[in-house]
This record gives sequence, structure tokens and C-alpha cells, in this order.
Amino acid sequence: MMHFNIFLSGEIHSSWRDNLIQKAEKLNLPVDFSGPVTDHDASDNIGVNALGDEPQSFWKDHKAAKINAVRIKNGIENADLVVIKFGEKYRQWNAAFDAGYAAALGKSYIVIHPEDFTHALKEVDAQAMAVARDEDQVIEMLQYLSQK
Amino acid sequence: MMHFNIFLSGEIHSSWRDNLIQKAEKLNLPVDFSGPVTDHDASDNIGVNALGDEPQSFWKDHKAAKINAVRIKNGIENADLVVIKFGEKYRQWNAAFDAGYAAALGKSYIVIHPEDFTHALKEVDAQAMAVARDEDQVIEMLQYLSQK
Amino acid sequence: MMHFNIFLSGEIHSSWRDNLIQKAEKLNLPVDFSGPVTDHDASDNIGVNALGDEPQSFWKDHKAAKINAVRIKNGIENADLVVIKFGEKYRQWNAAFDAGYAAALGKSYIVIHPEDFTHALKEVDAQAMAVARDEDQVIEMLQYLSQK
Amino acid sequence: MMHFNIFLSGEIHSSWRDNLIQKAEKLNLPVDFSGPVTDHDASDNIGVNALGDEPQSFWKDHKAAKINAVRIKNGIENADLVVIKFGEKYRQWNAAFDAGYAAALGKSYIVIHPEDFTHALKEVDAQAMAVARDEDQVIEMLQYLSQK
Amino acid sequence: MMHFNIFLSGEIHSSWRDNLIQKAEKLNLPVDFSGPVTDHDASDNIGVNALGDEPQSFWKDHKAAKINAVRIKNGIENADLVVIKFGEKYRQWNAAFDAGYAAALGKSYIVIHPEDFTHALKEVDAQAMAVARDEDQVIEMLQYLSQK
Amino acid sequence: MMHFNIFLSGEIHSSWRDNLIQKAEKLNLPVDFSGPVTDHDASDNIGVNALGDEPQSFWKDHKAAKINAVRIKNGIENADLVVIKFGEKYRQWNAAFDAGYAAALGKSYIVIHPEDFTHALKEVDAQAMAVARDEDQVIEMLQYLSQK
Amino acid sequence: MMHFNIFLSGEIHSSWRDNLIQKAEKLNLPVDFSGPVTDHDASDNIGVNALGDEPQSFWKDHKAAKINAVRIKNGIENADLVVIKFGEKYRQWNAAFDAGYAAALGKSYIVIHPEDFTHALKEVDAQAMAVARDEDQVIEMLQYLSQK
Amino acid sequence: MMHFNIFLSGEIHSSWRDNLIQKAEKLNLPVDFSGPVTDHDASDNIGVNALGDEPQSFWKDHKAAKINAVRIKNGIENADLVVIKFGEKYRQWNAAFDAGYAAALGKSYIVIHPEDFTHALKEVDAQAMAVARDEDQVIEMLQYLSQK
Repeated sequence: MMHFNIFLSGEIHSSWRDNLIQKAEKLNLPVDFSGPVTDHDASDNIGVNALGDEPQSFWKDHKAAKINAVRIKNGIENADLVVIKFGEKYRQWNAAFDAGYAAALGKSYIVIHPEDFTHALKEVDAQAMAVARDEDQVIEMLQYLSQK
Repeated sequence: MMHFNIFLSGEIHSSWRDNLIQKAEKLNLPVDFSGPVTDHDASDNIGVNALGDEPQSFWKDHKAAKINAVRIKNGIENADLVVIKFGEKYRQWNAAFDAGYAAALGKSYIVIHPEDFTHALKEVDAQAMAVARDEDQVIEMLQYLSQK
Repeated sequence: MMHFNIFLSGEIHSSWRDNLIQKAEKLNLPVDFSGPVTDHDASDNIGVNALGDEPQSFWKDHKAAKINAVRIKNGIENADLVVIKFGEKYRQWNAAFDAGYAAALGKSYIVIHPEDFTHALKEVDAQAMAVARDEDQVIEMLQYLSQK
Repeated sequence: MMHFNIFLSGEIHSSWRDNLIQKAEKLNLPVDFSGPVTDHDASDNIGVNALGDEPQSFWKDHKAAKINAVRIKNGIENADLVVIKFGEKYRQWNAAFDAGYAAALGKSYIVIHPEDFTHALKEVDAQAMAVARDEDQVIEMLQYLSQK
Repeated sequence: MMHFNIFLSGEIHSSWRDNLIQKAEKLNLPVDFSGPVTDHDASDNIGVNALGDEPQSFWKDHKAAKINAVRIKNGIENADLVVIKFGEKYRQWNAAFDAGYAAALGKSYIVIHPEDFTHALKEVDAQAMAVARDEDQVIEMLQYLSQK
Repeated sequence: MMHFNIFLSGEIHSSWRDNLIQKAEKLNLPVDFSGPVTDHDASDNIGVNALGDEPQSFWKDHKAAKINAVRIKNGIENADLVVIKFGEKYRQWNAAFDAGYAAALGKSYIVIHPEDFTHALKEVDAQAMAVARDEDQVIEMLQYLSQK
Repeated sequence: MMHFNIFLSGEIHSSWRDNLIQKAEKLNLPVDFSGPVTDHDASDNIGVNALGDEPQSFWKDHKAAKINAVRIKNGIENADLVVIKFGEKYRQWNAAFDAGYAAALGKSYIVIHPEDFTHALKEVDAQAMAVARDEDQVIEMLQYLSQK
Repeated sequence: MMHFNIFLSGEIHSSWRDNLIQKAEKLNLPVDFSGPVTDHDASDNIGVNALGDEPQSFWKDHKAAKINAVRIKNGIENADLVVIKFGEKYRQWNAAFDAGYAAALGKSYIVIHPEDFTHALKEVDAQAMAVARDEDQVIEMLQYLSQK
């Protein structure tokens, strides 16, 4: 069996990570998952919570985004595979940023997105190793890839 | 003087690149610019134009995006500085992808975006060397950076 | 003892991998093996099986080859040594591709091929650390290399 | 205009390189081409010609292939784009080796091959930025990619 | 949970490392710490102690600093995160050197320093992922970053 | 003759760069120099001058230091040799940061500093290719290194 | 404690490796050692033993040296520290080769050699982190470096 | 034609570099040569000449070797090909060091040495792209490699 460390990037407003992790566990797949902090509020406020108030929202966001980057960068750099989900809501520029980051490091990544994002995500899809519609398709690939 | 090769990534629906290039020329800045192909139609159709029709739009986009990637990847890798503009329209995931790509390569990049994108672009801004509002601010930095 | 992670690339139509693995196990060599998925049918169809039908065979193959690349790339990048077998059948361009990939990463690789491929494989052999005729020769080298 | 250094790998038994170069010159494309030595006889014998006879054909080939590798490795490493043609004749494992080498370095490459090689070359095509049928298609892409 | 290997660079004249380590242990954070040798005397004299006397203080320091570099370089290169404290005393150029070293390797680092060093440390802070005032702020970030 | 691109880092409060450049010009040495912006006021204020006011001095410094980093990073990365001067005044943590940055990139660097900094700079000196007292010693080395 | 993987390169005609390993074990140092195969005869003949006779001594040596390189390259690349001993006998060009290899990878290395080799080994010593006279000095450094 | 930057390493006690350069010039080969400083006396004394006396010969050599390393490292890193000659005299560990350095960087190198060094240089030859007996053989290869 081949073991994979997988970083789950992108959407943090649905339970897709738990969904994927539970299915992988049920199948006993030899994979380990990591991802960003998904508590949206904690994530937005970690900068000011840890380091003190910022009157300007730009710097509040800046401090939070940098602290989060410690975890995300670490997760992508230690991953054998990155799975990136683009959901229906928000602009999710961070998901596309992570895809570009993974691509430049030569890391394999798989994208999950609805069909109607096809044209808008064509540059992200172009460097992906697979473009899936949902978690089940990802599980099918992981089951295949991690077999004996 | 320090010379800079600058790749202009992001928005292709306004004339911001020409605006920036003309201002830099007027000031005789020691900079060279490159960028993606900005003819939107040609860019969308280069895959099928060069390599033959595709009945499915996914593969039509895929072929085009990969050919465009030859130029974009080359431009970013040869750049000393990447300037990335996020405009008001479209999702512009390719702009965020280029930012992530530049970040992972350790390339300096500068972002231009309207103030109301601050929260949505916080991860992209966090790795930027500067966040500008318009081309004039970029020119002021280039004039400073390329001085004797 | 020196431990080696070994990726077994190339021919998937004979049982050479099992042969090699069993001999290594019998000798208790401190080596771990990985390799591509060797179920030929599953390998050819994983793209359409996981991600949906493709009317054109080019895209069917394309989707499968990219998913397989996740495993192969991962295997080569984590290997201390790559062993690549060229068998009598098929063109096996993927085996030569893996050799080039390993060479560019600075990974040591050993080639197994029949004597009559000598001229055709000269570029692949030129970068190899050894050119063997069969699995027994590889076992002899592994036994030597992994000794105390 | 964006300039490209292009290494022409693969088939050395047809005049496809001259064909491509002449078309690029006629169109004044801002591209420079390099490639392996294409004099087949000189290429096979450079080892013994420069360094002295070898009674065994393996070592004769070995010495030649290594000297040729100095030029090929140099060409690929200095290229912005590699174009690799698989012709109808011979096994051409060196072409697939060059593709793997380029892929591992993160170099963009374009493949030219007849349609009936689709299945056999799927791993090589999977990492390519484009799969063309002939030199004209490559010229069309180069004209597009190197425009202002 | 995400595990972090953390190298503690900088000031060796206070007990900030022990302070940080004890707090992390009390919270059961999934982190491992390493750092330079903090026995000041042993550190200054390791060169002459291990390798023989030096009449000139430059070479005495030189031999010691190189031996210490074996540990520091190893610690930074194996770290997922570097925490660098600038204390009130001494010039601490080694702390700034480590920050530059980490930055060039693309390693995330966090700086701890008193507010009145803000201007003098602006280049070091500019590449940091966070600028903290004390160990408690670092613990708060580590607790956040290493959560499930 | 061997040409050298040399980045002059460190002290910006004396005319040592002009001194070095003029001596090199008089000797017709095949060297090109670059360095940071040395107009101290412009350097401190470029952040707010280009991008708008900051009420907090931390962020004012932060914006300036990042813009300056575009030039410094570019200069070091394109240099064959970095010369770093530590003067008598200020803490000059940026000079030590640049030394660490150069060291991690595998760039050769030469340090200039007064004798009484020997102990405090031992870690910076340990990775240097030479430790000089003044510009004349650097010129003597450059004359030697760039000879036919 | 900081753990070190140490590759022991150079002289294979004395028992210095066993000497060093036993002393490290007695002190319970947190270090792991690896090294080349030190059975001189087996090392010289592994090429022909594993892969078949060679009438010319050049190719006999060539095949052996490449197989040995698999182990040596692997050992150096996985090491945190390389210790290289130059003994009184033989030319030991392989020891100097390993030093250059380690230096280019940015690996710390320590050299052991008799005093009268000082001038001849100056280029090798110049990139070393320490130059020792015997194993005891190395043990003293390892004890220091691996302390808590 | 393919241009090559060639660094000439090794023996500095014969005129082999001039010999090679003159022959290349006569043939108008598109190659540029660089190399270490070959004035033996100047090379041994540059450390004390530029930076002041050293009572101990170890440090005198050390200072000289490091300054020379600035040129050698620069030359190898900018070279497309390294040619390394081992002559009859001296131990020439620096030549083997340069070979190892080039090998680890993935640089092609060619060795020139007398036949009786075959066994002693087997590790250096094993990673070489060619092993020549004299400058004429190198010229023949360069003429071949740099042809149209």
C-alpha cells in the first residue's frame, strides 16, 4: 500500500472535510489528512486575539492571514497530495492561491468544483491531476491510488 | 540603477497594463514588462484553433488554459517582480493562482485591488510585498525601487 | 544497515515485481518497495471509472494517466532508488519517462532490460547506476548495498 | 513580445526541425531553437571517435550517449519550452526520457505524435502542455504565445 | 492535529525557552522544540575545547561559531517554524542572521521583541509571519495553529 | 577575466559604497555593483509615500521594509558576491539578516567590520568567505578574483 | 537532545568508523551512523560480481563505482552531518569528491586529517565546519552538539 | 550552434588551459572559458596579502582557500560544462572536490587524467560524462557538441 499525506484546502463553510475523512476511515485507506483551521471566527480573529487589537480592518486581516499561513504552508509542503474544494459561496481566492502554491512546488493536486465553474477555473483545472464533482469521486481515486 | 523584469498578471478586461507601461516609459524606468495574451477571444480559443475542435467545453477550456500556461509560467519564472491586478469583474481565480505560484517560487509580488476586496483577498495580500489601489501607486514604487 | 525505499517502475505485464519482492523478503533485506498500480484494466479505466465517461479515447487515457501520475510521482519522489524494467512487449514509453524524471531529480536508478535493447536504450542506460539483465542481478546489488 | 528558447527533442530521421525552424523564421517569431546533434552516424560514433575504440557495443553506445547528454541536458535546462516529436520509426525511448526529464524540472513541453500513439504515449501526453499532430500546429501555438 | 517542529533561535541569556516549553507541555501541544546550545561558556569555548587552543580571539570565535552552526543549521532546516527572540541585551546579530537564513529557505518564522525595537527590526519583522511581545502570545498562536 | 555582480549590503550612513565603486572603476575591474536605496529618509517613508498614511509606526515601517525588500532580495539573488558592511552606529540587524539570507542561498559573501565586533559577529563571520577591515581590502580581493 | 544522522566518508583501511561508533554508543549519543561498504574486495568487485565480467579494468571499476555511488549518494543526502577522514595512505580522491558533493548540497561536514595534509587539503578544509585530528575530537563535538 | 560556458578546474602546474583555449579559438568554437587563478604564488598568499598576516599556516591557507572559493564556486555555478584535469604531480584534492561539487549541482563534467589513475579516480570518473586522456580529446568533443 502507498500512504498519502493529504492537505484539504479551500471551502470552510460546509462539512466536506468531515465527509471525506469519515469515508476514508470507513474504508481504512492509508491516508492522513490535514487542513486549515476551519472555525471561521477563530480564523478571522486570531491576529488580534493573539497579538492585540488593530483599528484598521486591513491590518486585522493581515495579521490573521499570516498566522494561518504558517499552518497552510506547512500542510501543503508536507503533503503528497492536495485536495482543493471550490464551493458555491464566496470568492475563495485563497483556494486558488493554494492551487498555485502547490503547482509551483510540483505537488499533485485534485480540484473539486461544480460544473458551472468550468470556464472560470480553467487555469486552476489545467494544472490539476483530476477535476472531481464531489467527495465520492475523490474517495474512489484515493481507494485506487492507495491500493497494494 | 536596478533593472526589473515585471510580469503583469490578472485582469485582462481593462487597459491597466498599457496605462502602467506608458507611465513607466514616460519616466524612462529601467523595467521590462511581460504578461499573458490579453486578446480574450484568442485566449479562449487557442486550444481549438491550434489543435482542433472539442465538443465538450471542459476540454476546449483545458487545451486553451494549458497553452496559455506556457507563456504565463515562463513570464513569472523569468520575472524579478510580479504585479497582479484584481478588477471589479469576474472571479479572477487565475490571478490568485498566479499569486500562489509566485509566492511558492519566492518571487516578490505586488497586488492591486479595490479596498472592498480586503477581506476576501487577505491570504493573497498576506504574502504580497505591497498592496496598491491603482497603477499610479505601482509606478511610484517602481520609480523608487529602480533608482540609482 | 542502510535502508532503501525502492520504486519499481516499468513493465506491468509480468510478475517481476513479485519475484523481486519475494527474494528480498527471503533475504530479509532492509528495503521497502512501492510501484504503480499493476492491474492493467483498472489502470486504463480509472479516469472514466472515477470521474465519468469520455467519448474520445484521448481524454479517457488522459484522465487515467494523470490519476496514475499522482501515485508514480509520489513513489519516485519518495524513493532512494528506482528500478525500471523494460520487457519484451509494448513500447513502454512510460518506463523511459520515469527514468528521465528520476534522472532530473538526481535519483539513482537501475535499469533491467534484455541485451538486444542496448542500442535503443543507450540514453536511458547512460544515466543509470547499473544496467541489469534480470531480477537476480538486482537482488545481488541490493544485498550488497544494504549490508551493514 | 515574449522570447522563447526552444529545445527540439526526439526524432532525428526526418527534417521536422528544419521545417519548424524555417516556418518560424518566415514569420519572424522571437524564438531561438536548439537540439541534439542530428547527424546519426556522428552521434553514434562520437564516443569511440573522440575517446578511443571499444570492443563491446554496450560501452561504445555508453560513451556516445554520455557525450550527447552534455548537449541535450544543457539544451533542456536552458529552454523555456521543449518540443518533442515521436515519429513512426524506432522505439525513441530517448524522446520519452527527455519528456520525463523536462517534466521533473518543471519545464513546459509540447509533444508531436501521430494519433495512433495516443494510448502508448498517454503518460507522456499527460504532463505535456499540448499534444500536436504536426509542425504547423506547433507554429500556430508559437505565433500565439510569442505575440505582443 | 498538526504537529510542528519548532526551532527556538536568538537570546540565550534568559529562560524564555524553558518558559515556552513548559507552557506548551502543560497544554499538551503537539510540538517539538529544538534550539542552539544555551550554555554560554561552553558555546564560546567549544572550538578550543574540542580542537585545541587558538592564540587569536578571532579564530577562537571562528572555530566555535562553525561548530555551533552545525546544530543551528540542522535545527532550522528541519523546523516547520522558527521562533526568534531579540532580548534587551547584546547586539544579537546571530538572531537576525537566523531570521535571514529562515527567510531564504522559505521557512515561516515568528519574532519576539520589545516594542522599542520596532524601527531597528523592521526588515526582520517584514518577512515574519507574526511579531509577538512575549512567550504567551507565541503559545496562543501555537495553540491555535496546532488544533485539530 | 571573470565578471562579478556584487550587491553592497549593510551600513547606509557613510559613503563606503561610493568609495568602493570609485576604486573599482579606477582599476577597471569587471564588476557591477547594486545595493539598497541609500537615501535614508526616502527609504523610511516609501511605504506611506506610495501607499498612504499609517497612524501606527509599526505598520509605517512594515510597508516601507517590504517595498525595500523587493530591491534587496532581487539584488542578493542576482549577485555573484555580496559585500556587507557593519559600521560603528546603529544595530544594523538588516545587515545580519542579509548575511543569513545570502548564506542560505549558497551565495558567497564578504563582511567588513571593525575589529571590536569580532565576538558579536562571530556567527556572521563564520559563514563569510572573508572578513575585511575596510574597502581597500575588498578592492584587493576583487582585483585578485577578477583577474584573467 | 538533537538527533544527528551522520555519514562516515573517506578512509576504508583502518577501523576509525568502529572506533567512533563504539565511543558514541558508550556515551549514548543520539546519533545514527551510516557509511560506504568497507569490505575493500567486495567493493572493488561488486560490478563484475553482480553484472558480469569486464575485460577492461576501466569498465570493471566503472561498474563498481556506480553501484557504490547508490549507497554513498543516499547516505550523504540523508545525513545531517558528514564526517570525512583522510588517512595516511592512498590518494583518497573519493573522500574529497564526497566533501565537494556535501558542500554543494549545503550539508555540514567535518574533516579528520593529519596536520601535514593542511596545505594540500586547504580547499576541502575551507568549506568544513571543523577540522579535527582524530576521532576523539569528533566525539567531543558530537557530545556537545547533541546535548539537551 | 550551441554555446557552452566551460570552467577549467584542476591542475595549475602546466599550460593545459592555454593549450585548450588556443585550440578552441583556432577552431572558432562557440565556447567561453573560465577557471581559478593559476598564479600559484598569488593564490597561496591572497589571504594574507589582502587581509593581513597569519602566524599559523593553517589559517593562512584557510583565508586564501576561501577567497579562491569565491571565484571557483562562481565559475562552476555559471558553467554549462566543467573540465577537470588531474596531472601527474601533487594530490589535487581540490580537483576531486570540484568534481563532487559539480556532480551535486547536476553539472556535466569531463575528466582528463593519465591511464594509471583509473582505479584511484573511479568514483570521480563514475559521475563524469567523459574521461579523456588529453586536451585534444576534449577539443574533439567540444567541436562535436557545439556544432550546428
